[in-house]
Amino acid sequence: MPAQPLLTDFPAFAHLQTKAQSLQKGSISALIDDDTQRTLNYVRTAAGLRVDFSKYLLDDATLALLLQLAKQADIQRSIAALFGGDCVNTTENRPALHTLLRADADDGMAEQFTQVSATRASMQTLADTIHHGKHQGFTGKAITDVVNIGIGGSDLGPRLATQALAPYHGSVRCHYVANVDPADISMTLAGLDAQTTLFIICSKSFRTEETLANGLTARQWLLDHGASHGDLQQHFLAVTTNLEAAAEFGIASANCLPMWDWVGGRYSVWSAVGLSTAIAIGWDRFSEFLQGARHMDLHFRTAAHEQNVPLILSLLELWSCNLLGATNHVVLPYDQSLNELPDYLQQLTMESNGKSVNLDGITLPYHTAPVLWGSAGTIGQHSFHQLLHQGTLQCPADFILPLTSHTDNAEQHRRLVANCLAQSRTLMVGRTLEQATATLTARGADMQSAQTLAPHLVMSGNRSNTVVTMEKLTPSTLGALLAMYEHKTYCSAQLWGINPFDQWGVEVGKDIGVAVYARLQGDDESPIDPSTDALIAQWREANR
Amino acid sequence: MPAQPLLTDFPAFAHLQTKAQSLQKGSISALIDDDTQRTLNYVRTAAGLRVDFSKYLLDDATLALLLQLAKQADIQRSIAALFGGDCVNTTENRPALHTLLRADADDGMAEQFTQVSATRASMQTLADTIHHGKHQGFTGKAITDVVNIGIGGSDLGPRLATQALAPYHGSVRCHYVANVDPADISMTLAGLDAQTTLFIICSKSFRTEETLANGLTARQWLLDHGASHGDLQQHFLAVTTNLEAAAEFGIASANCLPMWDWVGGRYSVWSAVGLSTAIAIGWDRFSEFLQGARHMDLHFRTAAHEQNVPLILSLLELWSCNLLGATNHVVLPYDQSLNELPDYLQQLTMESNGKSVNLDGITLPYHTAPVLWGSAGTIGQHSFHQLLHQGTLQCPADFILPLTSHTDNAEQHRRLVANCLAQSRTLMVGRTLEQATATLTARGADMQSAQTLAPHLVMSGNRSNTVVTMEKLTPSTLGALLAMYEHKTYCSAQLWGINPFDQWGVEVGKDIGVAVYARLQGDDESPIDPSTDALIAQWREANR
Repeated sequence: MPAQPLLTDFPAFAHLQTKAQSLQKGSISALIDDDTQRTLNYVRTAAGLRVDFSKYLLDDATLALLLQLAKQADIQRSIAALFGGDCVNTTENRPALHTLLRADADDGMAEQFTQVSATRASMQTLADTIHHGKHQGFTGKAITDVVNIGIGGSDLGPRLATQALAPYHGSVRCHYVANVDPADISMTLAGLDAQTTLFIICSKSFRTEETLANGLTARQWLLDHGASHGDLQQHFLAVTTNLEAAAEFGIASANCLPMWDWVGGRYSVWSAVGLSTAIAIGWDRFSEFLQGARHMDLHFRTAAHEQNVPLILSLLELWSCNLLGATNHVVLPYDQSLNELPDYLQQLTMESNGKSVNLDGITLPYHTAPVLWGSAGTIGQHSFHQLLHQGTLQCPADFILPLTSHTDNAEQHRRLVANCLAQSRTLMVGRTLEQATATLTARGADMQSAQTLAPHLVMSGNRSNTVVTMEKLTPSTLGALLAMYEHKTYCSAQLWGINPFDQWGVEVGKDIGVAVYARLQGDDESPIDPSTDALIAQWREANR
Repeated sequence: MPAQPLLTDFPAFAHLQTKAQSLQKGSISALIDDDTQRTLNYVRTAAGLRVDFSKYLLDDATLALLLQLAKQADIQRSIAALFGGDCVNTTENRPALHTLLRADADDGMAEQFTQVSATRASMQTLADTIHHGKHQGFTGKAITDVVNIGIGGSDLGPRLATQALAPYHGSVRCHYVANVDPADISMTLAGLDAQTTLFIICSKSFRTEETLANGLTARQWLLDHGASHGDLQQHFLAVTTNLEAAAEFGIASANCLPMWDWVGGRYSVWSAVGLSTAIAIGWDRFSEFLQGARHMDLHFRTAAHEQNVPLILSLLELWSCNLLGATNHVVLPYDQSLNELPDYLQQLTMESNGKSVNLDGITLPYHTAPVLWGSAGTIGQHSFHQLLHQGTLQCPADFILPLTSHTDNAEQHRRLVANCLAQSRTLMVGRTLEQATATLTARGADMQSAQTLAPHLVMSGNRSNTVVTMEKLTPSTLGALLAMYEHKTYCSAQLWGINPFDQWGVEVGKDIGVAVYARLQGDDESPIDPSTDALIAQWREANR
């Protein structure tokens, strides 16, 4: 196998470095003013989404160089490998077939698709039965509340999708418990009735510590509230590959939905992991969610590089992080129901691309995944936007904006939209010293105090951002949005030369966790390290 | 006035640069192994909190240099100025007296304290009346739900404190609405009964766009659900300085609690802005919250530099960000009820210190506030911890750990504690190539495949982190924790030479927001910029 080239080895990279130096002296506003076609040429559409990167610090020549870079990295081969079922997860020697989870029968990979299709049929039956209030608890009452117990990929995806699609909910309420902190499950259960509550245990291995602990607590809660052991069957479903462990827990295989080793947790909302969302919105809507993602897949697979939305977003990330020095990426959904999108994307991007070695095991001489963070707009405007506008760090931003509201409060939604567009523009234009001085004198300040204060009002502007719009946040556009970020993440991994599908960095912590737990239990007294030992002693003191 | 010195001008700074170069070659584990006193010497306590920074990449000489830096920056004078009511908010020409909000009568500033004291008495009466179910709605039923309408500092503080202190709640439920997105208030009101719901409008100016819009929606909701105009008085309280605007909205001055211009929004949870929290937990508990913060104040004001917890945390921030190149700071509370702490601290730190000019208006040649982010542990372990352990960025971390649980589920809490200590240790020790190879061969891999895969399992370790513990998360320790971060933020501002109490960077966005809103309303057709104009056209198309 030929050695994996480094990002810095591609011929286009050196040209981009030169370009970065010259462009940093220019301004985004000037680029917009100088090119009447920019608002057309710096917009791409796919699967109901419109991505506007006209307020990004780059010009036509930069974009051409970035597209050359993609070609030099043979990104088209990587895309084909993903969809073709190649072993793109090299360190774990398996494919990454999350796109198959939303595929149609004729999209390929027939053998695995048969399993997907069978699982979809089971999901549909379960989801619709529960959604329509036809699944009963141990006293014969219809299930009204579903609690998904899972963590990481078995939590963040369905949690986000269920929240984002609130306008499509039926009468069953879905809740999410992830943390091993007992406060999480106890606060959730406090408001629920055991007779009408169903639990879904989501764990590929059925060995996830947090999930098992919460599952046992849930089981005990049912028993404490009148269920017999025989009743438990009606109150538990599982999503897992480990039918044996599920059976040991007390969940019959008929109540288990499968997972596959060719789907990573952070790419699994499209699988049976999404069951709680399917229950909340019903199967037809969940199918639309899958279809939205599939439309993005088709686009990603077939669109020319210069039209390819996920690829272009990835190239913008490379440009920001590896050429202009950004170390973080802020995501600002102007939609309260997407409040948890940054949490979801943190796992997707940082667990996928928070790596330091390339496929050949070479330590990389450049940065990979930036820290992704953010919150729903307009919340952040009254918080961290100060730093976005006047801080010393670059924070390339994605604004995400559904253009219409599910509510009938058009006036408030108009304010939301206005704020989103205003923040995007403000990051670009900033405020000059002259403008600041004029602002102050217009408010009645004398020239001397205006000149003293004005530097504090200056905003550099020139802060790159994209605006992703959609007509409405629907199951379909949400699916497209998440698939867009999945594929962007994949492209960035290819350009950086890393494997986005493994997560070797979480192993050691689990092992050490087992050791510390044994110490806390008193099962083992061997020292760990002086600092940890001192903390353990302190815990003992507090829990005597 | 003498010119404000730059951080880089202090004599200790150059020595720290040299030190940074040499220490980066060493390891934290070795520092711990080489110094039997480290687990004692790198721990500080204050107001019920214990801060352990033994797993930070610094040694005694570094700490001595950092303390010299603090002395050279005359931090003691800054501390005295804060508590003494000096105009520390230079650009707005006023003091920052948030510490007075939790002070006792003999702590100084008698004139302002009289106002604080009177407000506390009003808060106490209101909080206890409502907490004990003695406040009635328009049909004579007791108030069961309180909705706080505010944004930024009028939301994040009480929202966090109410959530964090859930074990102390009485029977009144508190809800928080911040976003102008109408989905926020409509989702909140969907579960409530107008007859038993009280609203608190929190806005210093009573002109905050989001808050007023939501307030009007709330008022209409009450009217739509049977309240008469005359009934509204019983359902609205306000926290504001603008009694006139509140009266115009329909809230009599008797139902208004004051704010003062010497308290910034992000420092205001201790004021009447905390009313919803006081209602949730009752006045006695809220007093404990204030007292916890006051204990931290006394510590900060009087402790020697080398014992001063907020100062030392600030020096660690400087060391990480300005000498070792970190650009972010991750906060990991191992307590589900502190899940929103990162959001709160984002405002506190990034709105305070996201600045680029010093007090003299000079553009700074170094970084100020890092991006602060995080989430409750163990959630992040199944998400972004991959990047913390194996990414290319430094992410200095604060672990926050209450040592006992409010629940009786000791087993799950033990797992939570074990995970926290394990993650802290794992960041320090990492995994070497030799260990990775040995791990793989022990699992049965042959030497060649072990050697190929091992680089992917390597973790650099040497990633600095602190562990902040407390016996229990109580109103008092929560107060101390938040005050600790306030004072840390203040110290960092002093060392960077900036004003942490203004936020000039948010003005322009508001002005542009007004202009865009006028365009969306159709009140104004003048062009803004081609990119914004195109987005407006797109919104029009979607909303025809």
